[in-house]
Amino acid sequence: MRFYFDYVSPYAYLAWRQLPAIAARHAEALEPIPIVFGALLSVHGTKGPAEVAAKRRYLIKDVYRKAQHAGVPFTLPPAHPFNPLLALRATSLQMPATTRHRLIDTIFAAIWETGEGIEAPGAVARAAAAVGLDGAEIERRAGEAETKTALRAQTDQALAEDVFGVPTVSVDGELFWGVETLPALDAFLADRAPVPAELVARWEELPESASRKI
Amino acid sequence: MRFYFDYVSPYAYLAWRQLPAIAARHAEALEPIPIVFGALLSVHGTKGPAEVAAKRRYLIKDVYRKAQHAGVPFTLPPAHPFNPLLALRATSLQMPATTRHRLIDTIFAAIWETGEGIEAPGAVARAAAAVGLDGAEIERRAGEAETKTALRAQTDQALAEDVFGVPTVSVDGELFWGVETLPALDAFLADRAPVPAELVARWEELPESASRKI
Repeated sequence: MRFYFDYVSPYAYLAWRQLPAIAARHAEALEPIPIVFGALLSVHGTKGPAEVAAKRRYLIKDVYRKAQHAGVPFTLPPAHPFNPLLALRATSLQMPATTRHRLIDTIFAAIWETGEGIEAPGAVARAAAAVGLDGAEIERRAGEAETKTALRAQTDQALAEDVFGVPTVSVDGELFWGVETLPALDAFLADRAPVPAELVARWEELPESASRKI
Repeated sequence: MRFYFDYVSPYAYLAWRQLPAIAARHAEALEPIPIVFGALLSVHGTKGPAEVAAKRRYLIKDVYRKAQHAGVPFTLPPAHPFNPLLALRATSLQMPATTRHRLIDTIFAAIWETGEGIEAPGAVARAAAAVGLDGAEIERRAGEAETKTALRAQTDQALAEDVFGVPTVSVDGELFWGVETLPALDAFLADRAPVPAELVARWEELPESASRKI
C-alpha cells in the first residue's frame, strides 16, 4: 500500500506511527511517498485545516486527543506552517527502503515528537546522518533539479489517484484519508471487500436538487 | 451537550444514530440544534466535501464504510445536494424535546435510510404527522419569518461557538467535529479532561515560517 504524506501534517505523523503495525498484521508492504500538501490544495481549490481560523483552533485539540488515544508522543514544532520541501526532497532520494523508513521516522520525530523542527540549517543533514547517510551529500542532492522533479512527479501521482489530502493510504484502488480511517484500512486489509460499485455509481449519477453559490 | 447538524450531511445522520447511546451512557442531555451547513461554509470561506470533485467521489466510500462499521442502515436520497431548509425550519419549531427527537429520527430516516428524500411536496408534513404533529400546520409555521429567523439564530450560535462543520457536538466548551470523533466524545464525557490549555496557547502563538499563496 502507498502512504502519501507531507511532514507539515500532524495527522500524517500520527498515521505514520501506527501504519507499520497495520502493515505487518496483514503482511502488506508499506511504501511511503512524500508529496506536497500545498500543491494538492492548490489543484483542488481547497484550504488546509490550518488555513481556516476556526479549523486551526480546533485542529490542535483534535490532534492532541488522537495522539493520546493512540499513545503516540506529541509536541509542537517551532513554527507552523513551516517549509517541508527540503525534508520531502531528501526523503525522495534513492535509498534502501529500510533507510527511507528510518529517515521518515527521524524527521517526523524532529518535528512532532521532540519539537526541534526540521528547518534549522543542517537539520535535514543531521536527520540523514542519524540513519547512517552522508548528511551533507543528502542535503546537496535534495536541492538538485531532478530531486525537485521527482517530488513533483510523486505529487502528480497522488493527484492521478484522486488524492486530495494527507495522510492518504492507497491500496487496491481504495483511498483511506486521515488518521481516523486507519481502523477502516485495517478492516479492508482483512477482507479486501470494496464499497459496492452499484452504490458508487448511483452516487456519481445522483442529480443535484439544490446548490450553493460559491 | 449540543448537537449541531444539517440534514444534508450523511455524517450528521450517522452521528445522530449513535449519539443517544453515548448521551445515555453518561447521563448527558442531548440537545439537537438544526443549522445551515452552507452558511457555515460561506462564513468560513470553505467548501463542503461534496463541493470538491475528488472529495465527493471519496465521500460515498467513506460514509458507506462508517455506516457498515457502526451497523447503521444507509442508502442514498433521490438527489444530493438537496434543499434541507424546510426540514431544518420544521425541526426548529417549538415542540416537546421527545417529539423533536422523533421528528429528527423520522426526517433523517426519510433521507438516508429509506431514500425517499424530504423535498417532495408534503414530505415534511408527513414526517411531522408520523410523530403525532399536525403536518399541514408544521409546514405552514416552518415557512413563517420568525422560524427562518430562528434557524439563522441557531446557525449564528454555532458560528459563535467556532463551529465550522457538521456534525459538531459542543460540550463544556469543547467541540467534536465529525462522526469519527464520537469515540473521543465518549472518552471526554467519561473523564471531562480538556486538552491542556498550555498546548492550545502555544499553538495559537506559534509563528508561521512558511505560508501558501491562496
